Amino acid sequence: MSGYFSEEKSVETVNARMGKDINPRLAEVMASLVKHLHAFARDVALSQAEWELAIDFLTRTGHLCDDERQEFILLSDTLGFSMLVDAINNRRPPGATENTVFGPFHVEGAPVRQMGDNISLDGKGESCLFNGRVLDLEGRPIKGARIDIWSDNADGFYDVQQPDTQPKWNNRGIFITGPDGVYSFVGIKPVSYPIPDDGPVGQMLKALGRHPYRPAHTHYLVTAEGYQKLVTHTFVGDDNYLGSDTVFGVKSSLVAPFERIEDGQTIWRSDFDFILTPVDRTR
Amino acid sequence: MSGYFSEEKSVETVNARMGKDINPRLAEVMASLVKHLHAFARDVALSQAEWELAIDFLTRTGHLCDDERQEFILLSDTLGFSMLVDAINNRRPPGATENTVFGPFHVEGAPVRQMGDNISLDGKGESCLFNGRVLDLEGRPIKGARIDIWSDNADGFYDVQQPDTQPKWNNRGIFITGPDGVYSFVGIKPVSYPIPDDGPVGQMLKALGRHPYRPAHTHYLVTAEGYQKLVTHTFVGDDNYLGSDTVFGVKSSLVAPFERIEDGQTIWRSDFDFILTPVDRTR
Ligand SMILES: [Fe+2]
Ligand SMILES: [Fe+2]
Repeated sequence: MSGYFSEEKSVETVNARMGKDINPRLAEVMASLVKHLHAFARDVALSQAEWELAIDFLTRTGHLCDDERQEFILLSDTLGFSMLVDAINNRRPPGATENTVFGPFHVEGAPVRQMGDNISLDGKGESCLFNGRVLDLEGRPIKGARIDIWSDNADGFYDVQQPDTQPKWNNRGIFITGPDGVYSFVGIKPVSYPIPDDGPVGQMLKALGRHPYRPAHTHYLVTAEGYQKLVTHTFVGDDNYLGSDTVFGVKSSLVAPFERIEDGQTIWRSDFDFILTPVDRTR
Repeated sequence: MSGYFSEEKSVETVNARMGKDINPRLAEVMASLVKHLHAFARDVALSQAEWELAIDFLTRTGHLCDDERQEFILLSDTLGFSMLVDAINNRRPPGATENTVFGPFHVEGAPVRQMGDNISLDGKGESCLFNGRVLDLEGRPIKGARIDIWSDNADGFYDVQQPDTQPKWNNRGIFITGPDGVYSFVGIKPVSYPIPDDGPVGQMLKALGRHPYRPAHTHYLVTAEGYQKLVTHTFVGDDNYLGSDTVFGVKSSLVAPFERIEDGQTIWRSDFDFILTPVDRTR
């Protein structure tokens, strides 16, 4: 009978079980998932003990998830899956600023600041002047672009990770461009930090001989009407982990210059332009 | 720099990150997993919203797991993954009894019974005489084979699912063969039942247009020194769900005859021989 399982026709048997009146996109996605999962088991001849280990790993990963911690996102990130999904959904023409992972530390509702404001509220770290413009693909300034910025502090923690010791909205702020498209603010030269590695994902990284660090970066979410949402970072070029970001977020176009200026309190200057892509324009 | 991510080389980039001194089997399995997961995302051009749905699904699946409920095993079962792993690890020569899924309802330590004993302790259901022999591939009886049996009751529940209303060890028992290899016991003709479907896996089955039922079956775990462990069921041939077992456990060789005999209290008779495979013998 056709509904019976066989090792050879496992994919066909499982996928033939789907109903006819279901969401066609769901059918497409699930059929492909079954195909690739079965191909994986077949390719490595997955043992019963390995299957049990996988069930236990997924269970422990789920148990660690709560409002503060999302271990499945860490898993997706460290397997390069998050970056791949990001890349597939954000193919942009040459010259446009590239996307990278959003990460778990963005907070809605940061205060809107005036150009030139200092967002480092804890006074720690090496002060840095961030400068640049928001432009379209033809190099014209974009007015009214909203630049939402967040970074860790000099100890490698976001304010939400240390609500008791960091001032609220430390190293966060929103800036709105004027007609010249220019933005500028004072923050800190960010530092590298490890992703939370005391759970199953940390154990996996250790077993794989991988470190849990991300190279130093500043997060940007840049939005403007008529343009694609830009979720990106700028990276510090001399970071030890630049070539081995544990979540694979680095792209060479996102490595920004950090120039030592020592201008009063301000030690560094980093210039970077954000080039937005019109909605519906792709590579 | 080689460590940087690109959509095109996502698999190579992630897998190149593994250390050199790690467990070679772990390296093999993880490299294949990354390859197939990335191929899946690429094939369907997985959207950001679909990725978020997957993260949420896995998180809810993990949260439902505890000592009583293993939702990730249900997920593996309903995607045919458990049966595939079982098949890969139990390739047997022609004539040998085939394996099928173990399932979550086996309990260690069932009482050893005398041949002919009745294991249906709640008096519910249609009584059935189960008969047969444990044989080797040449048809010779195997002495000292241990047959561990479990099935649901006439309401479709295992005793462990209803500890307050079913007698302990209802429809369970262990039988040891003598020199003739013969076994025989009285149980019930089992009935179909749904897997637990009030969680994420049940929602998935519903969205896929699939029912949560398993066709009626009796579980057997047969072991004997020098032979491969046999984990299997026998199925009732006239079951409505025989062609659509939600965990894909049915194999045509495991469909057993159920003959109506109406001999006193006993209504059915089901004959089935278990043919064991020597250790280290494969297909
Ligand atoms: Fe970050
Ligand atoms: Fe069962």
